[in-house]
Amino acid sequence: MQERPTVLLGACLDTKGEEARYLFKVLKELNKEVLVIDGGIRGTPFFEPHISREEVARASGFSLEEIKKIPHEGEAIVLMAQGAQRITKDLIKEGKIHGMIAFGGSMGSLLWGTVMQDLPFGFPKVLISTQASNPEVIKRVVKGKDICLLNSPVDLAGLNPLTKSIFLRGAWIISGMVQCKFEPVKEKTVALCAKGNIEGLTALVRKKLAEKGFTPITFHAWGYGPLSLEEAVKERLITAGVIELSNDYLEYLYGGTSYPPEDRYENAIKMGLPLIYVPGSCDIIASLPEDKRFKGRKYVKHNPSVWSYRTTKKELYDFALKIGEKLKKGGNKVTVLIPEKGFSIYDGEGGVLNDEEARKGFIEGIKNFDKVITVKVLPYHILDARFAHEVVEELMRLYKNM
Amino acid sequence: MQERPTVLLGACLDTKGEEARYLFKVLKELNKEVLVIDGGIRGTPFFEPHISREEVARASGFSLEEIKKIPHEGEAIVLMAQGAQRITKDLIKEGKIHGMIAFGGSMGSLLWGTVMQDLPFGFPKVLISTQASNPEVIKRVVKGKDICLLNSPVDLAGLNPLTKSIFLRGAWIISGMVQCKFEPVKEKTVALCAKGNIEGLTALVRKKLAEKGFTPITFHAWGYGPLSLEEAVKERLITAGVIELSNDYLEYLYGGTSYPPEDRYENAIKMGLPLIYVPGSCDIIASLPEDKRFKGRKYVKHNPSVWSYRTTKKELYDFALKIGEKLKKGGNKVTVLIPEKGFSIYDGEGGVLNDEEARKGFIEGIKNFDKVITVKVLPYHILDARFAHEVVEELMRLYKNM
Repeated sequence: MQERPTVLLGACLDTKGEEARYLFKVLKELNKEVLVIDGGIRGTPFFEPHISREEVARASGFSLEEIKKIPHEGEAIVLMAQGAQRITKDLIKEGKIHGMIAFGGSMGSLLWGTVMQDLPFGFPKVLISTQASNPEVIKRVVKGKDICLLNSPVDLAGLNPLTKSIFLRGAWIISGMVQCKFEPVKEKTVALCAKGNIEGLTALVRKKLAEKGFTPITFHAWGYGPLSLEEAVKERLITAGVIELSNDYLEYLYGGTSYPPEDRYENAIKMGLPLIYVPGSCDIIASLPEDKRFKGRKYVKHNPSVWSYRTTKKELYDFALKIGEKLKKGGNKVTVLIPEKGFSIYDGEGGVLNDEEARKGFIEGIKNFDKVITVKVLPYHILDARFAHEVVEELMRLYKNM
Repeated sequence: MQERPTVLLGACLDTKGEEARYLFKVLKELNKEVLVIDGGIRGTPFFEPHISREEVARASGFSLEEIKKIPHEGEAIVLMAQGAQRITKDLIKEGKIHGMIAFGGSMGSLLWGTVMQDLPFGFPKVLISTQASNPEVIKRVVKGKDICLLNSPVDLAGLNPLTKSIFLRGAWIISGMVQCKFEPVKEKTVALCAKGNIEGLTALVRKKLAEKGFTPITFHAWGYGPLSLEEAVKERLITAGVIELSNDYLEYLYGGTSYPPEDRYENAIKMGLPLIYVPGSCDIIASLPEDKRFKGRKYVKHNPSVWSYRTTKKELYDFALKIGEKLKKGGNKVTVLIPEKGFSIYDGEGGVLNDEEARKGFIEGIKNFDKVITVKVLPYHILDARFAHEVVEELMRLYKNM
């Protein structure tokens, strides 16, 4: 690490110029080089930044004048964010910046949070925001990223003992974070994606992988976990394979609460990694209580705000066709392993949501692809230790041929 | 600042012991003293903490055995959080810790985020969470606090290159934050609480206050802003007065989107501070689009997910009675200033939501208290510069008699 790391400071110098200058000064006092990038589109900048709003606009493919004419501020900000993102990614590639800090209210958080959405894992990214407890903003700016959010209880308007304390802490945070560089992954890492209702399987697979010298990395099959997994694969943080054990894409198709990206399951294949798919937790779709779409179905109350509804044979058949279309692109690097005696703790003999016929829906659907990818129906329940053994052995087989 | 600051490390040593030990080790390598507090209730602790789960349970008023018997994990965690909070606050008072870091998934975030809810502004608090993009968790653990959240895109399960990077960054963050101590406020600070649709007033009041040697500190009258304001008052961060310019309590009463605390408006009075209330933005209640409760009313689309509905005379009359009951406790330290020609940019002559009769509702209601507190009806619109002048002059008058 060079002696004076460079921090990119994102700010809107139209409305937050005085505050940006303070943060700039504090960062310099902490012995950091600082590049200021201006995302403001109103008035004139409070001081001359290193990267001007005109440059940011141009990087988005528009002129600043064109962006200023957009009547809806939210849309103008999306363009400024795209421009700032392009510039930031170039600066990272050229090794010119070692961390980024930005701040704002709702519009500023949206702008800089969007920029941070496309910066790699491990690159320090700090967002000081007055909106860190606003669900509407948070779900748009954090998503699956390793962002550090500092919540400001006060408006970042003017310099006072509270805002100064917030900016000072932000400066110390990014100063600390730029000290720890993230090195390329050298271990044989295997990504796992699963939910809690098959925890017994996940735990066993993790243990067996570790015994064989692999490093398991688990992503929750909830919310933005699947997005994080896909991005980790794209960023080469996953080097030895992906084991998919969950139902997030099924929930996405039938209206649950998961947000997998469009290229779900496709990145492992693009990167040439072994990929195993197990229809874990596919006996259920999680959604809100008393969701009318699932009226009359059996369900389990997961918690007061989430119920898990039993899936049908038709849903599982259709889902198998859809996921099959994605998986077939991987050819012999892809295996689907099906525990025919039950897909989660709720499914299988004695399970409260048991439905053998429904499971057959998935099996019949996925068999349409068994000329291209490997499909194995195993005579176990998903939580049977023998199934975990088969999963790991299959990964070993695929890994050897990788 | 002593040479080796002490960091409190909150972790659940039943399920996250190995990870906690890693974070402990990294913090020690960064030359920090570390106290570990265990919030786990299952199994046995992975290593011996400085503050045991038994002590945490006892501090909540229950034994660990009693807490373990609670069938719902969420309820058990609330008790453990209360115990841990008491212990943490004592450690801060005794000067034994200078910052806190904790980590967890959904349950752990809820536990440690709850602990952090009652720690003072400026005390460094870092939460490493897999749930920082989960709106349901965030709105419960961040609220109005200056919490630093580091989002973990991977499950904090086991040590791998990604989790290690997250823990290392967390350690650097808290190490940086403990360097900047927050000093007691010496300035004459005045809290303001307002929304954007009276920005002209707020800007003028801020400017005039600064000219008179006061330091304005603005809190947004949205979400948890009013809670942050009340806490800042309780923590003596506000030393010269409070100017309330907004409708958050009105929205709370009639079902909008604000979350003011129960003791709203009461803390300034308890602390003996001058308090001015202006019914700013009280022409509207912000809520979801097409909210049935406001059917048939005039409205303004604030943004795609928030509409602002016109308030009625009866609502404003009833609201005045309710806020009057709170304000009257402050006697001659409280003044209500009413801009009779309009309460926001939408209200008043030519405004899209103008309703003179409705404004009279507030005036008639608040006059019930004019024997106890000062009530002045001024012949201005809220955005008239003369009204801003009156607000600041009134604060000066109250401040002199403070």
